[in-house]
Amino acid sequence: MIYIGLDIGGTNIKGAFVTKEGKITHRFGFRVDYSKTQEEIISLIGDSINSALKEKEIEKEEVGGIGIGCPGSINSKTGICEYSNNLNWFDLPIVAMIEKATGIKAKISNDANVAMLGEAKFGVGKKYHNLVLLTLGTGVGGGLYLNDQLYEGEEGKGAELGHMVIDPDGKECTCGMKGCFEAYASATALKNMTQEAMEKHKDSLMWKQVEGDLSKANGITSFECSKKGDKAAMEVVSKYEDYLAFGIINYCNIFRPEAIILGGGVSSQKEYLTDEIEKRLKEKNYGFKRTPSVKVLVSNLGNDAGVLGAAALVM
Amino acid sequence: MIYIGLDIGGTNIKGAFVTKEGKITHRFGFRVDYSKTQEEIISLIGDSINSALKEKEIEKEEVGGIGIGCPGSINSKTGICEYSNNLNWFDLPIVAMIEKATGIKAKISNDANVAMLGEAKFGVGKKYHNLVLLTLGTGVGGGLYLNDQLYEGEEGKGAELGHMVIDPDGKECTCGMKGCFEAYASATALKNMTQEAMEKHKDSLMWKQVEGDLSKANGITSFECSKKGDKAAMEVVSKYEDYLAFGIINYCNIFRPEAIILGGGVSSQKEYLTDEIEKRLKEKNYGFKRTPSVKVLVSNLGNDAGVLGAAALVM
Repeated sequence: MIYIGLDIGGTNIKGAFVTKEGKITHRFGFRVDYSKTQEEIISLIGDSINSALKEKEIEKEEVGGIGIGCPGSINSKTGICEYSNNLNWFDLPIVAMIEKATGIKAKISNDANVAMLGEAKFGVGKKYHNLVLLTLGTGVGGGLYLNDQLYEGEEGKGAELGHMVIDPDGKECTCGMKGCFEAYASATALKNMTQEAMEKHKDSLMWKQVEGDLSKANGITSFECSKKGDKAAMEVVSKYEDYLAFGIINYCNIFRPEAIILGGGVSSQKEYLTDEIEKRLKEKNYGFKRTPSVKVLVSNLGNDAGVLGAAALVM
Repeated sequence: MIYIGLDIGGTNIKGAFVTKEGKITHRFGFRVDYSKTQEEIISLIGDSINSALKEKEIEKEEVGGIGIGCPGSINSKTGICEYSNNLNWFDLPIVAMIEKATGIKAKISNDANVAMLGEAKFGVGKKYHNLVLLTLGTGVGGGLYLNDQLYEGEEGKGAELGHMVIDPDGKECTCGMKGCFEAYASATALKNMTQEAMEKHKDSLMWKQVEGDLSKANGITSFECSKKGDKAAMEVVSKYEDYLAFGIINYCNIFRPEAIILGGGVSSQKEYLTDEIEKRLKEKNYGFKRTPSVKVLVSNLGNDAGVLGAAALVM
């Protein structure tokens, strides 16, 4: 039996045949032209699945199902992509359309949930039962793996972990609220903090790092210069880590998971980031000394998290 | 088959024989003298279970297990009460001791978790799959019922829902942190807010309500006077509801449950409280209009939530 994982992204649609053990036996996919209608694109996806099966001479009876990860507001109950800002899709019944095109049962979930499932089943979270995933990118995405299961909430619309308000009078968030965790812990927030610090510290090494062009500063700039000992950069990084740890402590108290997994751009800093977060957690862990400590890990499936997690949806 | 539920409280230890359907067929228990050693008390509990079984002529083979709800820091994995402030118990291996005394398998969890399970299995949460319980009493306790299961976290030490920090520079919490949800949403917090308002408004009806004795003001004072139209009381209630809704919105975004169940002293205000909270949730629900709305309910098992939930632990 094989399981098909589909990772729908802003640029590429990636597909894979995956074994129960998480081994990818075949890859397919294509670069998407999002000027096409949403129906045309789904039709292309159906064709690409059918072609791949034909190419590898796999009968439909040998396929355990098709799992789909998609960005945006996905109703995992109805299988409809209600709204995806990135893809410009509205009210698209993806699951029904893919099932019709292929004759194979399908399931869908939002991309962060799928990444969580991938890491829990086949990645850095493999040996754990209770996990929280935070993707630190443009926003802060979230995934929950609790009691050995993906937890999605009603209609798959829970785990909006970036939209926990941590300061009622805090920074404005893109969602319309103030003080969301995302407004402090995303790569975008880090970039903004970096640019503010650069404006203040004209002598900072960060200016050299971006060749004098403020707009080139991103979520990596401050980390790189912090490693070289630049004081302004070190301050930015430390403040960012304080914010990030602050939200993570809340999630520790709410879930008491075995581990928090960090993904997204900022997580590329690996131990340089996670060691600092773990240190802060130890200082502020709720409860008595025996409260179990929480590991901070970095996702390790890289670009395959999407297809592997999607395939795991139907295992 | 019957299941034994034990509710260990600060004054009484209550026991019940419970059917799979949640019907209580027999009650037993006793008033506890906490000047006795912790070992003596557990021994008395064992005796009371054995006597009740004898009295009702029930063989041990007919018992599905003993479930125990206990306040404090309970390690549900090891079955040890590590620390209970209320009971003055330390490092007490309750499960092993009860199993030895009765010859029946036992399980333990903290009292808020057990109340959550009771409401989910037999109470107001019966028809739902994803639930969050908040008990608004001296502190704010929490329980989570996710994907049709109790979620306890590592060693049963998750669901510390009162200790989500919602304002980093906020009110001091008993746990040592600042700005915990508990410091705003507990009955104690409401009492403090009430007393502060009374100091400011010497003409408030609340003074009459407590017969001129500030120390008599409690979590009910402001609600009672608010219903009679007292302006100062109405302000206290509205501010309290703002705080409570604020934390609940976070839990909606994190879990997107079907319902939030309120328990504890403050929840006795029923619709007078829940209607206002639901109104606030509708205004600030994250996401697009189709994000499912979350019901706010009041626990309805009353004093039986403890024994019923405890029995459900072993069903």
